[in-house]
Amino acid sequence: MTSLDKRTTSLDLDRNGDLSEATQAYFDKCLEKLGLVPNVLLAYAFDEKKLRAFTEMYNELMLGDSGLSKLEREMIAVVVSSLNRCYYCLAAHGAAVRQLSGDPMLGEIMVMNYRAAALSPRHRAMLEFAERLTETPGKIDEPDRAALRQAGFSDRDIWDIAATAAFYNMSNRVASAVDMRPNDEYHAMAR
Amino acid sequence: MTSLDKRTTSLDLDRNGDLSEATQAYFDKCLEKLGLVPNVLLAYAFDEKKLRAFTEMYNELMLGDSGLSKLEREMIAVVVSSLNRCYYCLAAHGAAVRQLSGDPMLGEIMVMNYRAAALSPRHRAMLEFAERLTETPGKIDEPDRAALRQAGFSDRDIWDIAATAAFYNMSNRVASAVDMRPNDEYHAMAR
Amino acid sequence: MTSLDKRTTSLDLDRNGDLSEATQAYFDKCLEKLGLVPNVLLAYAFDEKKLRAFTEMYNELMLGDSGLSKLEREMIAVVVSSLNRCYYCLAAHGAAVRQLSGDPMLGEIMVMNYRAAALSPRHRAMLEFAERLTETPGKIDEPDRAALRQAGFSDRDIWDIAATAAFYNMSNRVASAVDMRPNDEYHAMAR
Amino acid sequence: MTSLDKRTTSLDLDRNGDLSEATQAYFDKCLEKLGLVPNVLLAYAFDEKKLRAFTEMYNELMLGDSGLSKLEREMIAVVVSSLNRCYYCLAAHGAAVRQLSGDPMLGEIMVMNYRAAALSPRHRAMLEFAERLTETPGKIDEPDRAALRQAGFSDRDIWDIAATAAFYNMSNRVASAVDMRPNDEYHAMAR
Amino acid sequence: MTSLDKRTTSLDLDRNGDLSEATQAYFDKCLEKLGLVPNVLLAYAFDEKKLRAFTEMYNELMLGDSGLSKLEREMIAVVVSSLNRCYYCLAAHGAAVRQLSGDPMLGEIMVMNYRAAALSPRHRAMLEFAERLTETPGKIDEPDRAALRQAGFSDRDIWDIAATAAFYNMSNRVASAVDMRPNDEYHAMAR
Amino acid sequence: MTSLDKRTTSLDLDRNGDLSEATQAYFDKCLEKLGLVPNVLLAYAFDEKKLRAFTEMYNELMLGDSGLSKLEREMIAVVVSSLNRCYYCLAAHGAAVRQLSGDPMLGEIMVMNYRAAALSPRHRAMLEFAERLTETPGKIDEPDRAALRQAGFSDRDIWDIAATAAFYNMSNRVASAVDMRPNDEYHAMAR
Repeated sequence: MTSLDKRTTSLDLDRNGDLSEATQAYFDKCLEKLGLVPNVLLAYAFDEKKLRAFTEMYNELMLGDSGLSKLEREMIAVVVSSLNRCYYCLAAHGAAVRQLSGDPMLGEIMVMNYRAAALSPRHRAMLEFAERLTETPGKIDEPDRAALRQAGFSDRDIWDIAATAAFYNMSNRVASAVDMRPNDEYHAMAR
Repeated sequence: MTSLDKRTTSLDLDRNGDLSEATQAYFDKCLEKLGLVPNVLLAYAFDEKKLRAFTEMYNELMLGDSGLSKLEREMIAVVVSSLNRCYYCLAAHGAAVRQLSGDPMLGEIMVMNYRAAALSPRHRAMLEFAERLTETPGKIDEPDRAALRQAGFSDRDIWDIAATAAFYNMSNRVASAVDMRPNDEYHAMAR
Repeated sequence: MTSLDKRTTSLDLDRNGDLSEATQAYFDKCLEKLGLVPNVLLAYAFDEKKLRAFTEMYNELMLGDSGLSKLEREMIAVVVSSLNRCYYCLAAHGAAVRQLSGDPMLGEIMVMNYRAAALSPRHRAMLEFAERLTETPGKIDEPDRAALRQAGFSDRDIWDIAATAAFYNMSNRVASAVDMRPNDEYHAMAR
Repeated sequence: MTSLDKRTTSLDLDRNGDLSEATQAYFDKCLEKLGLVPNVLLAYAFDEKKLRAFTEMYNELMLGDSGLSKLEREMIAVVVSSLNRCYYCLAAHGAAVRQLSGDPMLGEIMVMNYRAAALSPRHRAMLEFAERLTETPGKIDEPDRAALRQAGFSDRDIWDIAATAAFYNMSNRVASAVDMRPNDEYHAMAR
Repeated sequence: MTSLDKRTTSLDLDRNGDLSEATQAYFDKCLEKLGLVPNVLLAYAFDEKKLRAFTEMYNELMLGDSGLSKLEREMIAVVVSSLNRCYYCLAAHGAAVRQLSGDPMLGEIMVMNYRAAALSPRHRAMLEFAERLTETPGKIDEPDRAALRQAGFSDRDIWDIAATAAFYNMSNRVASAVDMRPNDEYHAMAR
Repeated sequence: MTSLDKRTTSLDLDRNGDLSEATQAYFDKCLEKLGLVPNVLLAYAFDEKKLRAFTEMYNELMLGDSGLSKLEREMIAVVVSSLNRCYYCLAAHGAAVRQLSGDPMLGEIMVMNYRAAALSPRHRAMLEFAERLTETPGKIDEPDRAALRQAGFSDRDIWDIAATAAFYNMSNRVASAVDMRPNDEYHAMAR
């Protein structure tokens, strides 16, 4: 059983009562499938409405149908988190890239500097867009979208690249603002 | 009846079939209450799962229970969007600040430079945190949280300030990436 | 009659004696033509020599002969002021763009992010130069001038674009440094 | 007699007819007093209205009555020009600091990095304000003005510090935009 | 025997003849002690004078007498390399922090964002100085040195902190400029 | 005889005993050849091992065999030091450019803004690479190296450009961190 006594941020957030059955079931499923309940879920659990809104957007974005593979979405997650220096997201999603790619070094390079990786033109264009959207969102313009189309992405793919990069610009900031701590297990995974 | 033929971004996103009844009802309610269906909803409507995830998070964050007033949340939205130079969000949420405050100039100042406003220490601390979280998320640290507590915010309020500022760091980037166009009506509202 | 008791900056600047007849006449003309005496003039009026130097440069630049239309010069004013986040100049010159263009939304977009506007190649080149001159003046170089010539500007036009963008880099800083307050009337003008 | 054939910028600016007598007299006076006609004046001379507006503001600011000494105003000019990397202004005003101070090294340090100089608290505060106003004008706020008052400056002095720093933020940009070339003589002066 | 055919940068650098006996012996010692010859040494080996100058400075700095422990010097190396996003140095020195500290997570946090670590005031002051020296070297001033003395560092320690942070600002740039590739072995070490 | 009592930084660094004969001889040679012992050497002399490591790397880099002329290496030194605003290095290496080129103005322009110089395409490419490597080392990539090859540089030259620019990114930071003071003589040299 998951204990909510575990403190995963430096904020002191009271919870009223126990987890709902649905949430408890969701956490149990995480434990079964991933071997852990990601601390981000415990952090949001002080308010189940917030938790549900977060997980629905997360699941739709990272696990739903898309022209981007799950690995590609995780690569975007790590590159954005590297630019924003988000410890939580780098630990958790760096592990995901190592796992999904079966290539531990790829996960490391995404954390450190994606430019050092031997990337396909598709991946290069995708990550350059994510970088630019993260660093200077107000300067994104038609040529940036054109570069993605040039690399073979459809307009629907462009939405997904944008939405994924944007989502981690949100998550990185929540995590940094509340000092969210990643599960220790991430560090040793898939090395 | 809301036409989805209206193009609200520069992406070409195909929709399969008509809006679901639930979505149509939601749009009708917007029209009734706000006098318009915000273009952001039409932009997301190419995929109702994405639309639903977005609106649930939005509604929980901007309209749900919080120690922050709705106006305070809109002030954060505008200040973050000003730093990121997001045309869509400045137009839409600038109007919201004007409307909720009954003070057209306050909406303008939030768009232009919040430092020029005569703010209470509470609002000043809140917006400085939002600014810093937007500009240098990787440098947010305990003294930043301490400054919010000093200004009277609870840890739960800190979560809400962080989550709101973070949300617009996401929305600004989606809007800029897809060239989202605000409804013309926003410009003249509550002047 | 214009009262100099009206405080338009947060500095405490003593004036010796009354306004000269010439200055009083100039202010009366402003009132008649614009419906107000711009607060920037009242701010400078503590020293009529400074006021005169400012108004002469201003009038030559913004109202004198030029290959740039008055609206184009105001567009530059607003874009530079947006980059420097100058509340005074955004309020005053945002109103001027709305008025001169008869297009309230154009004024808003210049304040928020000029990239979101549907601009002619000429205006796009002009504003990109103003932006670059504002942000990284030490990196301006021959290719930047060439881009303006390419867009149809003469060398004399280039001088005027440069001088206008440079002037607001001055005015924005004076206004921010002394906390200059725009006339309330600007906000509702030409909406 | 001053030749206007001398090209002082990379722009090709036609002049109509000869210099007016007044301008010719002014240039002669420069030659007599300074040993040269500053190239900035030749650059502006393609349009005598622009030249006059520039020289009036310049003379009022740099030579007029002020609580700041002429050397202090030149120190601000050089520090601002160093931050903006303006070759023209660094050459011309670096020479002025060397000359007015009788301390060649002081001129060099202002060009290179004012923090390396052994400055009085007054000069330190003055230059820190000029630096901050140059780099982040939108973040200038009451504590910045308070620091100047703390260092002994009156509100009128604050105006002059602001106006001087702001003026070079204009001049630096005009000079860089038009590729203005300083007179060769500056380099060897007062070494 | 170490093969120089192994390409460790993307530059094509000819070597004249075999390694000297001294260099070969040094490489053999690396192999024996570390289990590998660091690729940086192979990269420099195209010119043994450059190699020797590099290794002498490196060894004096990282292994010589100092008031800083070897782990502290490696922590500085990683934090500087993280700010400069140097893949080579993050891979190699991240491994060193894991190894010397016996704490794999500490190595990860130094790579990702040192602010997320639970650091002693001494380490915090040391890394903040290294960060500031890396990001804005021209703004380092007496208060920065005072903060180190306050945290218990001697002036000689300050030299060593400065020299170490400065050295990685050099090494990071050489590595990035020549596309230096770290040994694969680093990634799995001390996890 | 060189006195070590001369304080060349603001750190208080004890020396144990006299200079070794070798170091004394080296200083005597400097005095004979340059007319002074550069203060950087006196600064390092508190520890002769550090001094030796520094001078060996320096001499190899700045005086050793290279496809770059000594003047070209000094131009890189000054441009990097200008970007980092390092007073010591600008004073010392600005003098070196003036001396080696016999062109006092070239030295000044390198200090102030290299873009204002009339440079050959070779020198332009070399200095743009040095600038980019200094400002955004993590973004250096294959196109940056390609631009150097395009300008006629061999891969070995690229190494030397990179190593020189990188070295001054180190030296600038040591000098700024310890407040190193240049010899007064530099300012008047080769004017």
